[in-house]
Amino acid sequence: MTTHSLLILPGDGIGPEVMTEVRKVIDWFQTNKGIAFDVSEDLVGGAAYDKHGKPLADETMAKALEVDAVLLGAVGGPAYDNLDFSVKPERGLLRLRKEMDLFANLRPAQCFDALADFSSLKREVVAGLDILIVRELTSGVYFGEPRGIHSDDNNPQNEGGRVGINTQRYTSGEIRRVARAAFELAKKRDNRVCSMEKANVMESGILWREEVQWVHDNEYPEVELSHMYADNGAMQLVRRPSQFDVIVTDNLFGDILSDAAAMLTGSLGMLPSASLGAPMANGRPRAMYEPVHGSAPDITGQGKANPIACILSFAMALRYSYDLGAEADLLEKAVEKVLADGVRTADLMGPEGGTPVSTSQMGDKIVEAL
Amino acid sequence: MTTHSLLILPGDGIGPEVMTEVRKVIDWFQTNKGIAFDVSEDLVGGAAYDKHGKPLADETMAKALEVDAVLLGAVGGPAYDNLDFSVKPERGLLRLRKEMDLFANLRPAQCFDALADFSSLKREVVAGLDILIVRELTSGVYFGEPRGIHSDDNNPQNEGGRVGINTQRYTSGEIRRVARAAFELAKKRDNRVCSMEKANVMESGILWREEVQWVHDNEYPEVELSHMYADNGAMQLVRRPSQFDVIVTDNLFGDILSDAAAMLTGSLGMLPSASLGAPMANGRPRAMYEPVHGSAPDITGQGKANPIACILSFAMALRYSYDLGAEADLLEKAVEKVLADGVRTADLMGPEGGTPVSTSQMGDKIVEAL
Ligand SMILES: CC(C)[C@H](C(=O)O)[C@@H](O)C(=O)O
Ligand SMILES: CC(C)[C@H](C(=O)O)[C@@H](O)C(=O)O
Repeated sequence: MTTHSLLILPGDGIGPEVMTEVRKVIDWFQTNKGIAFDVSEDLVGGAAYDKHGKPLADETMAKALEVDAVLLGAVGGPAYDNLDFSVKPERGLLRLRKEMDLFANLRPAQCFDALADFSSLKREVVAGLDILIVRELTSGVYFGEPRGIHSDDNNPQNEGGRVGINTQRYTSGEIRRVARAAFELAKKRDNRVCSMEKANVMESGILWREEVQWVHDNEYPEVELSHMYADNGAMQLVRRPSQFDVIVTDNLFGDILSDAAAMLTGSLGMLPSASLGAPMANGRPRAMYEPVHGSAPDITGQGKANPIACILSFAMALRYSYDLGAEADLLEKAVEKVLADGVRTADLMGPEGGTPVSTSQMGDKIVEAL
Repeated sequence: MTTHSLLILPGDGIGPEVMTEVRKVIDWFQTNKGIAFDVSEDLVGGAAYDKHGKPLADETMAKALEVDAVLLGAVGGPAYDNLDFSVKPERGLLRLRKEMDLFANLRPAQCFDALADFSSLKREVVAGLDILIVRELTSGVYFGEPRGIHSDDNNPQNEGGRVGINTQRYTSGEIRRVARAAFELAKKRDNRVCSMEKANVMESGILWREEVQWVHDNEYPEVELSHMYADNGAMQLVRRPSQFDVIVTDNLFGDILSDAAAMLTGSLGMLPSASLGAPMANGRPRAMYEPVHGSAPDITGQGKANPIACILSFAMALRYSYDLGAEADLLEKAVEKVLADGVRTADLMGPEGGTPVSTSQMGDKIVEAL
């Protein structure tokens, strides 16, 4: 029997709370479907800093490189806001992304019909919305050198006497591989890719546009490709998000645009994400899964967190890392059923009412519905 | 009698069309209020490229540095999409910003009540919305060196063999001066500034945060200051834009976030902007005014463009460059009246109807209402 190895990194804030609910789902699959998961758990972010003095221990990093998949909760929180840059909780997450080489970050922005009214956008603009943002995750200004804050004391024009530098750097190879991921995904969806950059002001954006076009023309001529400046992209996402199918963009634009897109749907507590790398020996991609929401310090420890985003992230793991597509469907259907039954964590409670439940009760309901 | 010098740069697409309507307004003030404007006109963008082979002639640049204010229409269009980077229409605009040292770009995102239904957001989320984004405009990744596309042929890992580089670079002095502009503006509004960056992943963002905080603590302790990561900022703009008063952010984030904010209001054809620099000999800031909308090639030459954004940009010029606040009020009131009367260019025509007018008729109506 194959075992499916999974490293759980609950992290900070509501991370541990939502992860407890995923554990229930895993147990159910083990008990009822005879699927053997080999689950280990470790620290990341502020929780790791508290123990090790850094946001990701080397042993945890090594472990992440061994398993079939990593499931991460969330990192960061006000307690860590004043830490030095090099040990901030976020550095743990960035190290995982970089060393696992997870270059394609898949962020679906989907509007669940039951929740369309939570959007600040009109129902008719977001109902049925289903777009997928593919964000490059291992390069760009997040990782480019040189970087840092330097003294600029010799410059009399510079009141304050310092200079802050970061470098946006992309190779054609880095662009091509994430473009391929986007085209592959589009083929399974509506066959359309829109690539976003600022080729009108940045040379790295010109390279981005040319390489995406190259991959299209040479390998995916059958997929519809368009290009858009990222500022216009932000506008169009607000104006008429349903015009998009798959969006592919760089690390920094992807960070901003995918958060805006997630918020459009009104379903922030519901949105999963997958970060995928190159195929491992078993043929499946190196992978980390995370809810799109953050550590939500304001509601931590109150039983208010919605575990669905993390549970749906595990569903993505079932599909992409364990080749358990039918089980992923089953889990997603269970979530849909619970929502259709009116079961609601605090963030989902609207004027039309519903059955209010805690984080833990939501987990139980989903397991019951399996 | 003081004369007020103005350089008009209509640019491309609908730029010339909307500028014709501003001319009517200027004529009205000359004839009826005895205000002497010394108006000159020149080329920028694609129009300048067609004549000079570059998007801004040196004489035009020199002229821009002499006048009290510049009013620009829009630059760019499909005819120029394949031009070399160095002569793209946008380079003309960027040269003006840089050489006039227009470091503070003021982009109001205001929802006009009559137009609230044009927003893709719910009326209750955007009605009465009035936020001001102050974008740094002369530095950051738009201008940082090194930059370019280079061969990377020696790197066997790099399929495609090229690398694209841009540099995000901010000095403390550059950050402080735009922060001061934001705090000054906040004092005349709701006294709140929110600064946005990615200090969790970029050192230039850390410097940004520290310097804005420094200006606050040392010079504007009475203004409320908060900090937000730019990705969360994008989310919050979509979720509940009315939580903001003044937002201050860097050149690239400002580009994306201000476009998203403008689109929230549903009033894109209505939004003016001002780009301000250091005081000139006359004590008033070096300044360029522009509508927020672009060159709109799809409707160029059809009499469909809405001239209001450009006319309101001229109203900002009256206020900030000519010290003619009362005249600015008068012009803004005339625009309000025309809208209240139901006069509508195509972009403003909703289900509730109204009197459809062309670009030129809208200009006439506004002049009549003066
Ligand atoms: C926590 C932070 C480092 C991260 C990022 O900027 O990538 C987050 O915003 C995200 O989008 O996953
Ligand atoms: C036209 C382009 C160079 C410009 C920019 O990126 O700044 C535009 O998007 C803007 O916001 O004024």
